[in-house]
Amino acid sequence: MAHIDLNSDLGESLGQWRMGDDDAMLGIVTSANVACGFHAGDPAGILRTLKAAADRGVAIGAHVAYPDLVGFGRRAMDIASEDLRADVIYQIGALKGLARAAGTRVRYVKPHGALYNTIARDERQARAVIEAVLAVDPALVLMTLAGTPLTGWAGAAGLNTVAEAFADRAYESDGSLVSRREPGAMLHDAGVVTERMLRLAHEGVVTSRDGDDIAVAADSICVHGDSPDAVALAQAVRDRLVAAGIELRAFAGARS
Amino acid sequence: MAHIDLNSDLGESLGQWRMGDDDAMLGIVTSANVACGFHAGDPAGILRTLKAAADRGVAIGAHVAYPDLVGFGRRAMDIASEDLRADVIYQIGALKGLARAAGTRVRYVKPHGALYNTIARDERQARAVIEAVLAVDPALVLMTLAGTPLTGWAGAAGLNTVAEAFADRAYESDGSLVSRREPGAMLHDAGVVTERMLRLAHEGVVTSRDGDDIAVAADSICVHGDSPDAVALAQAVRDRLVAAGIELRAFAGARS
Amino acid sequence: MAHIDLNSDLGESLGQWRMGDDDAMLGIVTSANVACGFHAGDPAGILRTLKAAADRGVAIGAHVAYPDLVGFGRRAMDIASEDLRADVIYQIGALKGLARAAGTRVRYVKPHGALYNTIARDERQARAVIEAVLAVDPALVLMTLAGTPLTGWAGAAGLNTVAEAFADRAYESDGSLVSRREPGAMLHDAGVVTERMLRLAHEGVVTSRDGDDIAVAADSICVHGDSPDAVALAQAVRDRLVAAGIELRAFAGARS
Amino acid sequence: MAHIDLNSDLGESLGQWRMGDDDAMLGIVTSANVACGFHAGDPAGILRTLKAAADRGVAIGAHVAYPDLVGFGRRAMDIASEDLRADVIYQIGALKGLARAAGTRVRYVKPHGALYNTIARDERQARAVIEAVLAVDPALVLMTLAGTPLTGWAGAAGLNTVAEAFADRAYESDGSLVSRREPGAMLHDAGVVTERMLRLAHEGVVTSRDGDDIAVAADSICVHGDSPDAVALAQAVRDRLVAAGIELRAFAGARS
Repeated sequence: MAHIDLNSDLGESLGQWRMGDDDAMLGIVTSANVACGFHAGDPAGILRTLKAAADRGVAIGAHVAYPDLVGFGRRAMDIASEDLRADVIYQIGALKGLARAAGTRVRYVKPHGALYNTIARDERQARAVIEAVLAVDPALVLMTLAGTPLTGWAGAAGLNTVAEAFADRAYESDGSLVSRREPGAMLHDAGVVTERMLRLAHEGVVTSRDGDDIAVAADSICVHGDSPDAVALAQAVRDRLVAAGIELRAFAGARS
Repeated sequence: MAHIDLNSDLGESLGQWRMGDDDAMLGIVTSANVACGFHAGDPAGILRTLKAAADRGVAIGAHVAYPDLVGFGRRAMDIASEDLRADVIYQIGALKGLARAAGTRVRYVKPHGALYNTIARDERQARAVIEAVLAVDPALVLMTLAGTPLTGWAGAAGLNTVAEAFADRAYESDGSLVSRREPGAMLHDAGVVTERMLRLAHEGVVTSRDGDDIAVAADSICVHGDSPDAVALAQAVRDRLVAAGIELRAFAGARS
Repeated sequence: MAHIDLNSDLGESLGQWRMGDDDAMLGIVTSANVACGFHAGDPAGILRTLKAAADRGVAIGAHVAYPDLVGFGRRAMDIASEDLRADVIYQIGALKGLARAAGTRVRYVKPHGALYNTIARDERQARAVIEAVLAVDPALVLMTLAGTPLTGWAGAAGLNTVAEAFADRAYESDGSLVSRREPGAMLHDAGVVTERMLRLAHEGVVTSRDGDDIAVAADSICVHGDSPDAVALAQAVRDRLVAAGIELRAFAGARS
Repeated sequence: MAHIDLNSDLGESLGQWRMGDDDAMLGIVTSANVACGFHAGDPAGILRTLKAAADRGVAIGAHVAYPDLVGFGRRAMDIASEDLRADVIYQIGALKGLARAAGTRVRYVKPHGALYNTIARDERQARAVIEAVLAVDPALVLMTLAGTPLTGWAGAAGLNTVAEAFADRAYESDGSLVSRREPGAMLHDAGVVTERMLRLAHEGVVTSRDGDDIAVAADSICVHGDSPDAVALAQAVRDRLVAAGIELRAFAGARS
C-alpha cells in the first residue's frame, strides 16, 4: 500500500504569544517540526507541544534556525561555519532533552526559514549543518527540499535525508518553488491542492505552473497550520489521501 | 588513599567577550561546571571549552541558570515552576548535545548564581530543578552546597547528590557561608586557603570565622578562575593537596 | 464637566506574534501604554502602534518593564538599583525616539507587570524608577495605582503622578486590588463594570467586594484589550461614560 | 590652525563582561562611538561610559548595529527596511535618553560592524538608516567611510555627514580599505601609523599599499582601544598630532 508522511511546523508560540493551533495540527500530521528556541518557542511551551505529540504518536523533528526571534528566523545571516555548527548542535541537544522529558525522542532535523533556503544551495552553510547533525546524532534524518543540492551533500557525508514537497506552493518546471513574491505562488483552493497531493503520493508527479508534469520525489508533504484556513486545508489533504487509500505514516528514512 | 574533586565554573565567555582562563583552569580542576547559554556562554564557545575539557579528561557538569545574560544569572527571579523545570531541561539537553559533539558527556548538574542560592532553601524552585534533572537524565548527579536542605529534597526524590565546599569563602559556625556583603567573606591568603582545604580533605572539618571547628561533608571543592590571582590560588590549592598525598579525581557520586 | 482618561496596554506584539487589537483599542482609549521592547514589542511594531496612536490623537505612555520577554515582564526580579534605573532610562529614551519618528511624544510612564506591583510598595526599586524618570525627562508623569505608597515617594521626589483604577478588577475595602488568585478578582459583567466606572468618575467611589464604599482617587481607568471580550468591555465602559456626559480625555497631570 | 577629530568605539562591555579600556580611551579621543545595546552594551554600563565621556568633554555618537550580541554585530543580515529603520531609531532614542541622564547629548551616528560595511554600498539598507536618523533627529551627523557612496546618498537626503579614516588600516589605491583577510591589512607599527595620520591631517593624503598617494577627505580618525597595544597606538597617534600642532577636537559637521 502506498504511504506518505505529513509534516508541519509546531511549537512556535513564545511565552504569552500564541502561534498556530498545535492541538488541531497534531490530529492531522504524522511528523512535527518543533521549534528549538532560536526562531520561536520557549522551553515550557516546547515541552507542552512535545508531550501532546507524544500522546498522539506524532514523530518529532528539530526545527533548527538562525538565532533571530524578532525576525522569526526568516532573515538570511552571514554566520561563521563554526558558530552555525554549534548553534545547530545546541538546538538539537536542547530538543532531545525536552523530548526525553516528554517521553519521546527526536527523529529528524528540519532547518527553518532563511536557514532552510540558504543551505538548499549554499554549500558552506550546508556543510556546517550536516556536520552538526552528524556530530550530535548520526541516526537523525535531515529533511530537505526535494531536488536541491543539499540532498547530495548530505548523502555524500553519510547523512540520511528525506525529501519533502509543499502542499500549498506552486512549482516551476525545473522543480523549484515559485517565489512567494510572484503571483500564484501560494495555492488556496482545497480541491486543487488535494488532487495535486494525491497525484504526488501515487505517481511522484506534480504539475508546474507552466503545465508540465514534473517528477517530485518526496516522502513527506509539508502542510501549514498558522491560520484556521490553513488548518482546514491540511485536514482536507489528509482526508483526501486517506480516502484514496494512501497510508499516512511518519517516514522511516527510506521511501517504500 | 584520600581523594577529592576540584570544580570550577568554565565556558563563561560570550561571543567576543572573554571571561576567565579556561585553558589554565582545565589544567587544575577535575570537574568543569560549564555554562549552558542562559547566564553565559554561546554555543561555539561552550563547544570549544567542552573539547578542551575532553582532551584533559575533566568531568563535565551542566551549570544551569536563570535566563539572564546581562545579570549573569545573579538576580533572583520569581519564575513559575513549569518554566523553571523546562528551562533546566533545555539547558541540560543543549549541553548534552554539545558534549556528545565534543566526545564527552555530561555527568552532573550544578545550579548557578541566584538559582543556586535560591534552591538551597526554596523548596518550590528546588523541586522544579530536581524534577528537571530526573526527567532528562536520572543518572546525573546534582551538586549542592554542603549542609543545605536541597540535599535532602534531592535524595528523597531519588537523585544522587554531591556536596561541595568553597575554597575561598569563610564559613559561619552553623555551616553556612559568610555573606559576601560582610567583611572577611572572601579569603585571599593562599597559605590560609590551602591549609583549610587540606584539613577539609583529611578531616571533613573547616574552622568558622568565630573559631569553631565545623563538619563540612564535601566531596568537591569549588575554586574560581576569573582573575589571574584566582587561577594562582586554585593552583596553590591543587598543589598543596597533591603534595599531601590527596588524590584529585572527579567524584563518582559517592564519597569513598 | 466631569472628565476622565481611559488607558490600555498596547504595542505588545513581537515580530510575527500578534497580541491584542491595537487598532480597535486606539478607537476606545485616550492614553496608550506602549511596550518598550523589554517585556514585549519590537521596534517596527512599536513604531506602527505609535503612528496609529498619533493619527488618533491618543496620548503615549512608556510601558517600562523588567527585561523578560519569555515571562512577559511578569516575573519579579531582584535587580540592582543601578541596573533598574538605567533599564528604565533606556526604555523611555527608545520610546521617545520612536515617538518622535511617529510625529508624537511620550507624556507619561507606566511601569508594567511585576515591576508595577513591586514598586507600588518596594521603596528601593521605586526610587530607581523615580530617579530614572527624573533623569531622562522630569516633565513626564508617573502613572501609579491609586492609594499605594509609590504616589507619595514620587511626589516627594518632585515627580508628577496620575493615579489609575482598574475597570475589570474587584477591590478590597482597604483600597487594594483583590488578588488574581482569589475568586471574584476579575469582573466580566459589562453592566456591573460600566456602572462601577460611572460611579468612580462621578463620585470617586467604588464598592469593595465586602460591600463597602471606598474612595478611589483615580484620574484614569485602565481597560484591557487582549481578547475580543476585553475589547467589547472596554467599548462598553467608554460608551457608558460618554452617554452619562463624562468627557473622555487624556489626563493633564492634575485632576480637575 | 589645522584640526581633526579622533573617534573610538566605547561602551562595549556587557554586564559582567569587560571590553576595552573606556577610561583610558576617553583621555585620548575627542569623539566616542557608544554602543546602544544591539551589538554590545547594557544600559547601566552604557550610562557609566556616557558619564565618563561627559566629564571629559568627549562628543557622543550612537554606534548603531544589527541586533546580534553573540555575533557582536559583525554578521551581515538581510533585514527588511522597515525593521532596520525602526531598529536604528530605537537605538538612537535609547542612547539619547541615557545621554540626557548623563548630562550630555548625542551628536552623531556611526553604524557598526556589518551594518557599517553593508550600507557603505547597499542603497536599500543605507536609505533605511538615513531615514531613521532624519526621523529621530535631523541635526545628527552620520559618520561614513571616506569615499563611499553612502556619503552621497546621505547628503542628497539632507543629512550631514562626516568622513573618517582608519589609523591602523591599509588602503587600496582606489581609496577602499584592504580586506582584513589579506596580509598587511592591519598596521601595527606606531611610527608608520602616526606619520600616516599626520600626513592625512595636513595634506588629506595617505599612501596605498601599492605606493600611490591617494586623497582621503576625512574629518575624523578612528582609533581602537580593544587591547593594551591598541590603546598605546591610539595614544601615539594623539601625541604625534598634538606635537605637530594639529588641534584635536570633535568635528562640527564641516571640515575647516
